[in-house]
Amino acid sequence: MNINAEIEKLDWTREPKGLYEPIGYTLAAGGKRIRPRLALLGALAVGGKEQDVLPAALALEVFHNFTLLHDDVMDKAQVRRGRPTVHIKWNENTAILSGDQMMIEAYKLLSGVQADKLPKVLCLFNKMATEICEGQQYDVDFEQRNDVTLAEYMEMIRLKTSVLLATALQIGAYIGGGSEQQQHALYDYGINIGLAFQIQDDLLDCFGDPQTFGKAIGGDIREGKKTFMWLTARNIAGDTWTTDNKDVPTVLQEYEHLGVRKAAEEQIAALTQKALHSLELLHANQYTQELQSLAHQLSARTK
Amino acid sequence: MNINAEIEKLDWTREPKGLYEPIGYTLAAGGKRIRPRLALLGALAVGGKEQDVLPAALALEVFHNFTLLHDDVMDKAQVRRGRPTVHIKWNENTAILSGDQMMIEAYKLLSGVQADKLPKVLCLFNKMATEICEGQQYDVDFEQRNDVTLAEYMEMIRLKTSVLLATALQIGAYIGGGSEQQQHALYDYGINIGLAFQIQDDLLDCFGDPQTFGKAIGGDIREGKKTFMWLTARNIAGDTWTTDNKDVPTVLQEYEHLGVRKAAEEQIAALTQKALHSLELLHANQYTQELQSLAHQLSARTK
Repeated sequence: MNINAEIEKLDWTREPKGLYEPIGYTLAAGGKRIRPRLALLGALAVGGKEQDVLPAALALEVFHNFTLLHDDVMDKAQVRRGRPTVHIKWNENTAILSGDQMMIEAYKLLSGVQADKLPKVLCLFNKMATEICEGQQYDVDFEQRNDVTLAEYMEMIRLKTSVLLATALQIGAYIGGGSEQQQHALYDYGINIGLAFQIQDDLLDCFGDPQTFGKAIGGDIREGKKTFMWLTARNIAGDTWTTDNKDVPTVLQEYEHLGVRKAAEEQIAALTQKALHSLELLHANQYTQELQSLAHQLSARTK
Repeated sequence: MNINAEIEKLDWTREPKGLYEPIGYTLAAGGKRIRPRLALLGALAVGGKEQDVLPAALALEVFHNFTLLHDDVMDKAQVRRGRPTVHIKWNENTAILSGDQMMIEAYKLLSGVQADKLPKVLCLFNKMATEICEGQQYDVDFEQRNDVTLAEYMEMIRLKTSVLLATALQIGAYIGGGSEQQQHALYDYGINIGLAFQIQDDLLDCFGDPQTFGKAIGGDIREGKKTFMWLTARNIAGDTWTTDNKDVPTVLQEYEHLGVRKAAEEQIAALTQKALHSLELLHANQYTQELQSLAHQLSARTK
């Protein structure tokens, strides 16, 4: 199934235009559509039908894009996927209200799930939505704190990034008729590829190839963000370690010498292995193979 | 059933506090709890049980309060029910994110509806939520337009105010086992008391008793708002009529002389009659009587 074509079928030409145009604009920006693809793969991997999962798959993608829209307002981000963000192109009130409507549209799509599966799907979706908001709040809280631990950081990225991937897979598997064990195996796979993805993100920000990475190296360092790299450096070097008054090349050298780069690479490899182990609980087929490849791709990506 | 006691049972002491405290703060502000009461009355009026409707009734109240929270951000309102608004007491980002979570909490409460009734209730709820956002957008759009008609205004207040009251009643009646005809009669009742309520609001802003009204008379006039009063005056006096450069007493005199005050009172009476007619389609009982009284009370209120 071509998920992009399905997303394009959604109609945003309705009135009032001020409400719906920003939703169409946000969804037209593209992206990898990884969440709806995972929902479809979750169903296929357990022998279910893509078509049954489509409403939930679309709901997950619309919800994800809603979170980006409101996050951009809160972060005062100017650009998203190479285009002005909604609150820049329109205004902040439009971004708030169209974002609200976008969340409602996600629930409208979700209501298309077959009636006997709807109660559990709604519960899984609500739990995920809650955890994403909690993750976002922890992310905000951490900016004000100097005593964030690596464990707290891992929990934050689990909530903010991983649960959406994991829930997409679980909902797909549930609608596709998978067993509880299969659902949980796919959920766990999603959690671990999500964590690996985020740490890879933190690593690339430091040691990516500026040519392929697409943005300047060291952005997290300049912003003083408490990433996996920063928190691991402090764990190794002690509580007094800091990046204050250090330029990017100096910090990168310290990350190299302290073994932070190596620790990140090892963590990504370990999380990828955990994800692959979860897949072994399923009957192997072309779709579990696709999920295997995806785990490898994500951990080997350079942008 | 004591709906306030049920709302107080909801626990907002969870972590992260920055996400949940503003939700508890918003819900603790009180208000008339009219929407959950209407949901319960909708069920009782058709012979259903209050207890079955409770999850949906709470969802409606939480959703309503979510709309107030985000509306206050968009309107830059400083005070709500005598207390600082969330974006003043905390900050704007907190108001956005806690508001988002509040909408999710509404859907979590809704997922407590019995499974066989959930698909339709979710659809009714989603339709209502969409219409409220559309009404809010029209309200914003109308501020930039000089050619808004009375019919457009009535449609805007139907979306922004009435559908939530109407849907509360319909969901109550549906869960309570009412027929399609009963559900629609209660929905129509809700639409008409909502419209009457809003026009009464516009009227009181001009001709209320400053002692009982609780705020200064003529606020809408000073802000140049296109209310029922303003639009009716222009309908009677012609397109060149305006409130520009007129003080509040002058405009009030014009409203009186043009017959705008009388037109508003007649419209409120007519809408109240329509609401009462809808109730006649139901078997009379103590709960339909309560709804009758409510229609009379709302149209006779002085604050």
